[in-house]
Amino acid sequence: MTGREWFQQELSRLVDPDESSRTAARRRADDILRPSGALRRLDDLAVWVAGWQRSPSPRIDRPLGIVFAADHGVAHAGVSKYPIEVTKAMLDAFATDRSTITALARIAGAELEVVDVGVDHPSGDLRTERAVDDHRFDECVDAARRVVESVATDLFVFGEMGIGNTTAAAALAHALCGSAEEWVGRGTGVDDDGLTRKIDAVRTAVSRVEGFDPLSILAEVGGLELVAIAAAITAARQRSIPVVLDGYVVTAAAAVLHAIRPDALDHCVAGHCSAEPGHRRLMTHLGLTPLLDLDMRLGEASGAMIAVPLVRMACAAVTDVPTFAEFFGPST
Amino acid sequence: MTGREWFQQELSRLVDPDESSRTAARRRADDILRPSGALRRLDDLAVWVAGWQRSPSPRIDRPLGIVFAADHGVAHAGVSKYPIEVTKAMLDAFATDRSTITALARIAGAELEVVDVGVDHPSGDLRTERAVDDHRFDECVDAARRVVESVATDLFVFGEMGIGNTTAAAALAHALCGSAEEWVGRGTGVDDDGLTRKIDAVRTAVSRVEGFDPLSILAEVGGLELVAIAAAITAARQRSIPVVLDGYVVTAAAAVLHAIRPDALDHCVAGHCSAEPGHRRLMTHLGLTPLLDLDMRLGEASGAMIAVPLVRMACAAVTDVPTFAEFFGPST
Repeated sequence: MTGREWFQQELSRLVDPDESSRTAARRRADDILRPSGALRRLDDLAVWVAGWQRSPSPRIDRPLGIVFAADHGVAHAGVSKYPIEVTKAMLDAFATDRSTITALARIAGAELEVVDVGVDHPSGDLRTERAVDDHRFDECVDAARRVVESVATDLFVFGEMGIGNTTAAAALAHALCGSAEEWVGRGTGVDDDGLTRKIDAVRTAVSRVEGFDPLSILAEVGGLELVAIAAAITAARQRSIPVVLDGYVVTAAAAVLHAIRPDALDHCVAGHCSAEPGHRRLMTHLGLTPLLDLDMRLGEASGAMIAVPLVRMACAAVTDVPTFAEFFGPST
Repeated sequence: MTGREWFQQELSRLVDPDESSRTAARRRADDILRPSGALRRLDDLAVWVAGWQRSPSPRIDRPLGIVFAADHGVAHAGVSKYPIEVTKAMLDAFATDRSTITALARIAGAELEVVDVGVDHPSGDLRTERAVDDHRFDECVDAARRVVESVATDLFVFGEMGIGNTTAAAALAHALCGSAEEWVGRGTGVDDDGLTRKIDAVRTAVSRVEGFDPLSILAEVGGLELVAIAAAITAARQRSIPVVLDGYVVTAAAAVLHAIRPDALDHCVAGHCSAEPGHRRLMTHLGLTPLLDLDMRLGEASGAMIAVPLVRMACAAVTDVPTFAEFFGPST
């Protein structure tokens, strides 16, 4: 089965949340020893986790962050503040626990894995050629499935690393949602000339894919780690494990799934709203409401990782706190 | 020395943050192995902690939540959804680790203390009499000072428990900031009739204190735990330990200090914006920008506690991650 066929098959038979677990968790949340609705948004989060964990007692004991990393042919077109070699250097920083995301994961109580789907082996230049050919598309889907289907976790956090990948994200968002400049931001901090080049690159790329279906758009103007992220989100769904999405790039990959089936992201929550302006716009399009809004624009799963303690606390506040009846004894 | 004299003395000689630690932490944050400014708000938080911890390497290893609890004479006036006895029941829930705040503190890695400054011994009814007489005012200041000056911690989280205390908070906010109804909300969820009684109570109380100084307003229309919280915030300042503020009640107590000296809250950050409508308005008045906005209205320090992992992560992202020079070696 090709990666494309796998997406089509899984998206045609998506796992649904367990309604009885949701109902039981909601009933419990409404009767916990505190004013009903006092933790509204956190209660909603706990009920959401309960449905996907298929348990009336949601809890997060083993959160796992996965950073998908790859290089981009378009990185040579002057669309980023940083040279393409930075992707590889950051992989070294992740592996040796000398990075922002590893420091954040430690405090969040999360494990971290990095999946290299093309560092030092860039995708095609999305301006002029298909970014991800069929063979590499299949490889990325397989790599994502292998890790997501094998690890022990109760909450996924998906992130990315790849110099040039906000250009790919903007191209995806533009191709899937229409209009143009409004999807392009400064990424890691490109200057005005770079921003102009980035807008041109996105325009050129998107002009190549008019009328294409979402998976073809992903292959043409996305990137290797974006294919992997879309596959990882889908594989997590089929394991019924909830997902915290990171910033613009991850959300752009998620948008491909949403374009195929609007309910494909029901098991996902948005960790944060990044400073990249397209991110908020894209989340609105997808119906996602971010948990945090702290003006971050790092990637690496950082914006999702800072939301992990909130999800853990939301679950604890329903599962580990007594109800009025449990505390005071049953009323007669 | 009376409690009032202590406030006046300390507020006249407030400790300032250490500027050299701030500068060093800022320089480090700007050179960490990530795009400059990628964690803007978290970097600002880390720099703020550095200044108050008087260290270029900010870190939160021992966060401590303190819940100040007391009862209110006005609770008998039908201004709350819950009877006054609930305050005492919640103290039992805190002590036996069967409460929302204890569950949240566990995930945040924080210790929790509860300081009873008047449970079962309500303040006066703020509608018609001074809520806190001189003797009890002094006791509350002493109790808060004793705990804040003795504990080992690197981050304080202050919260409260007291049926009726959002009425006191609204009266304080109204008396300190002017206007009327806009400061009164539903607290734990009072119905329309209760809301009307609450607005009347606040109006009546505030009419008694026109032209009073802020500490007199605190004593007249505040409450025992609000006096203690104002003292705790001041004592933390003098130990140069940063503080995360909880919701409306804590912020109203803080507003008393701000009315005396606008820089008195420089060592405080707002954990969250609660669903109580006066809270956002009051924070705007005080120049505080909340870290989280999740529609919570529980008190118990809960809205501050959910922000603790963010502060911990902000510090780790500056202190535990190498700079470009440390990672790549010094450039020549």
